[in-house]
Amino acid sequence: MKDIKVIAFDADDTLWVNEPYFRETEEKFAELLEDYLPEEDINKELLKVEIDNISIYGYGIKGFMLSMIETVSNITNNTADIALVNKIIALGKEMLNKPVEVLDGVEKILKDLNGDYRIVMATKGDLLDQERKLIKSGLEKHFHHIEVMSDKKTSDYKKLLKHLDCAPENFLMVGNSVKSDIIPVLEIGGKAIHVPFHTTWSHEEVNGSLAKYNYLEVENISEIIKFLK
Amino acid sequence: MKDIKVIAFDADDTLWVNEPYFRETEEKFAELLEDYLPEEDINKELLKVEIDNISIYGYGIKGFMLSMIETVSNITNNTADIALVNKIIALGKEMLNKPVEVLDGVEKILKDLNGDYRIVMATKGDLLDQERKLIKSGLEKHFHHIEVMSDKKTSDYKKLLKHLDCAPENFLMVGNSVKSDIIPVLEIGGKAIHVPFHTTWSHEEVNGSLAKYNYLEVENISEIIKFLK
Repeated sequence: MKDIKVIAFDADDTLWVNEPYFRETEEKFAELLEDYLPEEDINKELLKVEIDNISIYGYGIKGFMLSMIETVSNITNNTADIALVNKIIALGKEMLNKPVEVLDGVEKILKDLNGDYRIVMATKGDLLDQERKLIKSGLEKHFHHIEVMSDKKTSDYKKLLKHLDCAPENFLMVGNSVKSDIIPVLEIGGKAIHVPFHTTWSHEEVNGSLAKYNYLEVENISEIIKFLK
Repeated sequence: MKDIKVIAFDADDTLWVNEPYFRETEEKFAELLEDYLPEEDINKELLKVEIDNISIYGYGIKGFMLSMIETVSNITNNTADIALVNKIIALGKEMLNKPVEVLDGVEKILKDLNGDYRIVMATKGDLLDQERKLIKSGLEKHFHHIEVMSDKKTSDYKKLLKHLDCAPENFLMVGNSVKSDIIPVLEIGGKAIHVPFHTTWSHEEVNGSLAKYNYLEVENISEIIKFLK
């Protein structure tokens, strides 16, 4: 893998823990509604509302909070007490104030790459929330800047490369989501390395075969160095 | 004004109508709560909640929706029906689906500048919402890309210029907010032109004298060309 000039790292579940916090919050959310439905059905209804809302809310915790609130109305048939809504707002704010748990190997690889590449963070979360996490993580000094993407489809990566003035063959994406970080980058002629994380949001799961995609996978993010040197 | 290479345009109330939609929604919001408090007091309480939440929600419609919901709980002392929350979510979604009303002179100035400068949009709203408006506006072709800023303080502009690889003396900001678009840009050595809009959010108003700031002001955005040529 030569000619790489820009390396973009996905943030959530690539640099630091994220998805488990959503799972945790979903569990607490289901507990709040346990008199109405079993947990599994609550999760299904919430996911449906979330996916319906993605086109207007995009990704991130604020949209997740609004979707939880909408789900309460749906599930309780508008009979819920407004105190339940307050609890959901408190759950969301708790997420927005979580400490940041940097994943194993991240600090080391960023140090190892330092100076040789333009390092950016490419995320589809809320900018403010991602900035907060970057600062709390202590990793800020390693990144040239943050790229917020409204989605991570091929068209979004094309826009990103134009913005970075970077040719696809000079671009490497590193991330935990095959659907968002790997496939669309390969499709526009860029390079991608997959670093799996143990928990993936069902909306990020890939349907269909991956056989036609030729990408590298590493167990720990620090291993990407061996493909670069 | 020579040496300008990058011109950044603020989006809301510089390129298109925005603040009046917030005012409209606030009026409808106050109507929903008219049994509890007079409009003026509702607006005060909402503004207080919004400002308290800016540090975690940032700017944009989703945070505004969440702040309206929180205000309902406060004002009704948790007695409101959840149907009221549904109405607020509907008001927010209505805002997110508004048509885009491009301001007078915008299309012309963007055409006039075309090719001579790198033109970017610099906004602190939600990326997805600003992308939606840019596409609906028909102005997308004139912009190199969108810069989302979590705030518009001097430190944010420093980050922006680093990101754009642009020296302050080569940077011109055009916008309607003296507080966000003009003062911080002048403070880092950049150039700025103020294009006032008739409605300004109270949080964007400047306290104190502006006498020490030396910036240009035009009535219509198309007039900025005369300072550039």
